[in-house]
Amino acid sequence: MSSTNAAASSQAHPNIVDGWFKETATMWPGQAMSLEVLDILHHEKSKYQDVLVFESKTYGNVLVLDGVIQATERDEFSYQEMITHLPMNSHPEPKKVLVIGGGDGGVLREVVKHSCVEEVTLCEIDEAVPRVSKKYLPSMAVGFQHPKVKVHIGDGFPFLQDRADTFDIIITDSSDPVGPAESLYQAGYYELMYRALRPGGIICTQGECQWLHLPLIKNVLEFSRRIYPSVGYAFTSIPTYPSGQIGFIICCKQAGVRLSEPLRQWSAEEESEICRYYNADIHRASFVLPQFAKSVVLEVEVDVDVCRR
Amino acid sequence: MSSTNAAASSQAHPNIVDGWFKETATMWPGQAMSLEVLDILHHEKSKYQDVLVFESKTYGNVLVLDGVIQATERDEFSYQEMITHLPMNSHPEPKKVLVIGGGDGGVLREVVKHSCVEEVTLCEIDEAVPRVSKKYLPSMAVGFQHPKVKVHIGDGFPFLQDRADTFDIIITDSSDPVGPAESLYQAGYYELMYRALRPGGIICTQGECQWLHLPLIKNVLEFSRRIYPSVGYAFTSIPTYPSGQIGFIICCKQAGVRLSEPLRQWSAEEESEICRYYNADIHRASFVLPQFAKSVVLEVEVDVDVCRR
Repeated sequence: MSSTNAAASSQAHPNIVDGWFKETATMWPGQAMSLEVLDILHHEKSKYQDVLVFESKTYGNVLVLDGVIQATERDEFSYQEMITHLPMNSHPEPKKVLVIGGGDGGVLREVVKHSCVEEVTLCEIDEAVPRVSKKYLPSMAVGFQHPKVKVHIGDGFPFLQDRADTFDIIITDSSDPVGPAESLYQAGYYELMYRALRPGGIICTQGECQWLHLPLIKNVLEFSRRIYPSVGYAFTSIPTYPSGQIGFIICCKQAGVRLSEPLRQWSAEEESEICRYYNADIHRASFVLPQFAKSVVLEVEVDVDVCRR
Repeated sequence: MSSTNAAASSQAHPNIVDGWFKETATMWPGQAMSLEVLDILHHEKSKYQDVLVFESKTYGNVLVLDGVIQATERDEFSYQEMITHLPMNSHPEPKKVLVIGGGDGGVLREVVKHSCVEEVTLCEIDEAVPRVSKKYLPSMAVGFQHPKVKVHIGDGFPFLQDRADTFDIIITDSSDPVGPAESLYQAGYYELMYRALRPGGIICTQGECQWLHLPLIKNVLEFSRRIYPSVGYAFTSIPTYPSGQIGFIICCKQAGVRLSEPLRQWSAEEESEICRYYNADIHRASFVLPQFAKSVVLEVEVDVDVCRR
């Protein structure tokens, strides 16, 4: 599609003007990432959100929910690998895995790289996300094809309520806490996940950006530490997320677990074959925080090794 | 200034439209960072480049050269601290320091935090940069006020040619290799710096972004390893640089130096007082590369411990 056509089809989405998609949101005022658009591939208002897929000039196909970039084909591997392998490699033998959100399939693709996994269930509230991802983001949606994968379309809350002592790993691959994912950043959700974990189980959730959301991160870490005996914060670099960075809240049901040290790790050859971002050294380094964030995270880490349940 | 005024004054710079500054450049096609503008504070065509300073809505005052963001008051500390303290803390006792570029004064501000420094010279080609920084970026330009600082306005090449065996540290805080800084990314410049270093001396240069410029980084690392016996690559997170990340090429004139391990470090209390980004753990972690970049950097690290001069 020529740039003239892109400009013409820009009528179809309010964030696309003059052939560029511009991401603005109340959570990062005064700044915006823009990507040049070649073609709008899909646009709908689903039951829960505005769903847009466009072909960009330099980032491949891009999934956008409620005006916010969720994944681009060029850099998604950083986020998907880190949110998956950080908890998976911190667990001695994860067999049953739950993914809340993650409707693009990218986390599923990473989970099934661990041969010890017996079953991974995806619980996605919006059927539109897997549907459009299967059509336009095949390199992520390939995760849906694996025989160990089960898909449940519905709300994560009732799904978790029905399942106590069930999962070794729960990964929450959600959008930001405005819109359908708001409740996923509250203590009640972390308590539900705690109950649904088996002994030694680990959760990993999208943990926003140190440069933008330190008060939010501090709040989540504070209630996490009241619920889980072992809690950590890690982050990764990703160009198309706000400020180029996204973090992860990682909590374990067992006390005294040093989540920054991978319990299992691949050989250097396996890392080259399996990963494009993650490796065991990056696992360790991702927990090392800059001074301005360290002080906030440390403030709520005083009792890091004390089991409170 | 109201948004109406910002929109009106947007006439004054081609990158500012409808009250937003949009950074586009040939080095990162198809993507753009935008910052909301409250007021244009200064705009001129200097002898070397287009110089713009604007007041942003959420990033403080912003310095832009040839349409590319150089520093914002909100996040500059990440870059300035890392490009300075990585080489400074890798040296046992840096006394004489040279900064090439760095006309905003931020690197000077960081260098003089090391009490062992006897003299730090800044060699900046464009007098307009210190001049506008002193007026509009006082938190960076404060570096110019220190009694150990000497300023030379001129080209770094002849300046270095006249000074053999002179400096313990040379920091190149330059813009990208298009425009006045192009020659700073070539082997001839790295050879000049080698000659200007004292025994055990260390250089640190702006090393572009792994997500965008791996071929360029690989090229610089390749010729660096032919010139210097110890070479490393590190990076930091910074929201307003392209893709949210910038790297550093660090080379030492002495063989067998492990640049990822700080030779000197501050106490935890000193780190809290002195730094907002850097700490000794971040120093170590900044050299840990994701899989996609590690393979490229490793490719040119085969002879890492072999002194070739």
